Amino acid sequence: MVNVTEYMQQVGQQARQAAAVMAVATRGDKDAALRHIAAQIEASSDELVKANALDLAAAEARGIESAMLERLRLTPERIQAMAEGCRQVAELPDPVGEIRDMSYRPSGIQVGKMRVPLGVIGIIYESRPNVTVDAAILCIKSGNATVLRGGSEAAHSNQAIAACISAGLHAAGLPAEAVQILNTTDRDAVGLMISMPEYIDVIVPRGGKGLIERISRDATVPVIKHLDGICHVYVDADADLTKANAIAFNAKTHRYGVCNAMETLLVHEQVASTFLPELCAQYLQQGVELRACEQTRALVPDARLLAATDEDWATEYLAAVLAIKVVTDFDAAVHHIATYSSAHTESIVTENYTTARQFLRAVDSSSVMVNASTRFADGFEYGLGAEIGISTDKLHARGPVGLEGLTSEKYIVFGDGHIRV
Amino acid sequence: MVNVTEYMQQVGQQARQAAAVMAVATRGDKDAALRHIAAQIEASSDELVKANALDLAAAEARGIESAMLERLRLTPERIQAMAEGCRQVAELPDPVGEIRDMSYRPSGIQVGKMRVPLGVIGIIYESRPNVTVDAAILCIKSGNATVLRGGSEAAHSNQAIAACISAGLHAAGLPAEAVQILNTTDRDAVGLMISMPEYIDVIVPRGGKGLIERISRDATVPVIKHLDGICHVYVDADADLTKANAIAFNAKTHRYGVCNAMETLLVHEQVASTFLPELCAQYLQQGVELRACEQTRALVPDARLLAATDEDWATEYLAAVLAIKVVTDFDAAVHHIATYSSAHTESIVTENYTTARQFLRAVDSSSVMVNASTRFADGFEYGLGAEIGISTDKLHARGPVGLEGLTSEKYIVFGDGHIRV
Repeated sequence: MVNVTEYMQQVGQQARQAAAVMAVATRGDKDAALRHIAAQIEASSDELVKANALDLAAAEARGIESAMLERLRLTPERIQAMAEGCRQVAELPDPVGEIRDMSYRPSGIQVGKMRVPLGVIGIIYESRPNVTVDAAILCIKSGNATVLRGGSEAAHSNQAIAACISAGLHAAGLPAEAVQILNTTDRDAVGLMISMPEYIDVIVPRGGKGLIERISRDATVPVIKHLDGICHVYVDADADLTKANAIAFNAKTHRYGVCNAMETLLVHEQVASTFLPELCAQYLQQGVELRACEQTRALVPDARLLAATDEDWATEYLAAVLAIKVVTDFDAAVHHIATYSSAHTESIVTENYTTARQFLRAVDSSSVMVNASTRFADGFEYGLGAEIGISTDKLHARGPVGLEGLTSEKYIVFGDGHIRV
Repeated sequence: MVNVTEYMQQVGQQARQAAAVMAVATRGDKDAALRHIAAQIEASSDELVKANALDLAAAEARGIESAMLERLRLTPERIQAMAEGCRQVAELPDPVGEIRDMSYRPSGIQVGKMRVPLGVIGIIYESRPNVTVDAAILCIKSGNATVLRGGSEAAHSNQAIAACISAGLHAAGLPAEAVQILNTTDRDAVGLMISMPEYIDVIVPRGGKGLIERISRDATVPVIKHLDGICHVYVDADADLTKANAIAFNAKTHRYGVCNAMETLLVHEQVASTFLPELCAQYLQQGVELRACEQTRALVPDARLLAATDEDWATEYLAAVLAIKVVTDFDAAVHHIATYSSAHTESIVTENYTTARQFLRAVDSSSVMVNASTRFADGFEYGLGAEIGISTDKLHARGPVGLEGLTSEKYIVFGDGHIRV
């Protein structure tokens, strides 16, 4: 292996060259590449399982925890799902070259915007091999080149997937270097990758909060980041309590370890005594640990309700734990959210038109919902196809990042010989 | 004066609080503020001229060059134009709360996007006092709070303008702290301002390249930046040479010191011998210094055509100087632009439909034009109202940055009790 600095320079140069080709690639060629990749993945199912077995064996030998092993595992069903994902993204409209808002100005020129790729996307992620495919296909469809750095635990799986992606790009006449999966376990590779603005236009880190904070702090390349999901459901005085029950239960218990799960339930005091006793019993029945404010504990006199501390309001549990707080009114709910939310997703349950409109305006999160479970905050559910992450930033991309988040726009101007006078 | 660190903390906190109010301010209140500011500016014309006279006298005493004095000067006409600018921005649609693309998903939820303010915008600029008004009114209309740091040469003018803005905000019932003009000449204020991500969401530097590079390097707050304008006009083999002549002459000579002036003219070799002799004579007549490739110098045997060096292709002259190059074909023109352009604005002159479409796709600049002068790349010309700068970045905002560039979007979801299954 060559020196890691030289290797990364070479990867960067190849990515920049490939990006220029991808930016002008036709939709036909890009979709053909995605379908070829799908076919390659299906045809290589056995090889992928074998390569993955090497990663699993190494991980088991190192005593890696079972949840992580499960995320690492490739089964024929998961491989089939990856191939399906490629075909679904091929069906999506091509965002590149979309023109909008062309209008004539008093000067006679016609001005509007055209959507363009960002260039080269660097993606740094942990051990799930399906992220390799999701990231690659979104970048291909959006006309970008990509440099992928997966977790070392998935090295064999990722190289086997890389072979399918290369073959698919090649079959469609597109440069194989449009998707480069780093073939080095040198830890310096990440540091180099996040400080090559001449070759990489944006970094998308996917993984734990520690990884993302470290990369955001050290990167000189802009980062589209996804930090905590401290999501709230607020049950308003005018809520339909049947809907509220279903949404609050679903938002917490549908899956625990996900960023769009509710972590704090806020309940208007006018409905708290009707609403909370039954719902708390359901949570406890389901095995959810409850950390509640004093008012909730008075309404639900069950010893299993622990007293919530200030720290609970600021915690992303990612587990079967829920904080519950009774609030005096709408403003108190919005104020609590503004203080503690991570600006990921918040939902109000209300039948009141004015309150719903106020919540939509006042809450400054990447997804704001009315009468729906926070679990819907997801690229697939929003119709973006796959997603490359959920941005809690306000600049550039916000919320689930799909094809549009991987593009920018340029102004275009049509004239007939127009000059400034 | 208190300690500058404490002062900036206080400014930051006040800005953050004002931003929360501005984010939910109605269009009526924001427009009323803009009209009150216009009236205040008109009513204070004499005071503004007097305050400006103090700045001018101090600048003259320090021997500041006349071009800079001219930019610093406020006349009754310029003051009237600032007031008009406020009223024009009041007429523009309110971008905040705009909802787009609401569509039903198979799950039954309805998903789309709502436009939201960025929060607090920090603007660091040099001596032109009209920038104070432009920046303030764009931030008010887009629902943001702003912290303005103007050049110390304009300190008296800016404080007089600040009084008009405060009075206007107050008259409309909006927080005066929504626009804070720093009242300190301490140089540490800029360093503090660009490293307060807890209070400031984005920094927009306006000024010379040195200022912008320094701020971009040192800022921990994201920066919307505007670096060079090395703009090209490419005269294609299929150009209408009458249009080409008018556009090439206008793009260079309409104004010299501006970022959207053409700095390099590229001409297809098939039309060079017909096109260049007359145009070069016009440029020389106008006093434009020409630095040309060998082929141009052979076609235009005038001793005043200097030999261009590689450095000329990479230079933003901002002066009555033009580089000229004959290219063998379309691809050579696009390649030259990709190599030397600062990705600000490029224009092709051609009657060929296919060539025009190829240029629009292949050239990756913030504005790409067909048969129009690069001088049109400007927020007013594009219909954005005022502009806060021209971004040559690809992330978030690109090209002239008006109200939309000062906003972001959030996803909004409407359900009727929907849960994930």
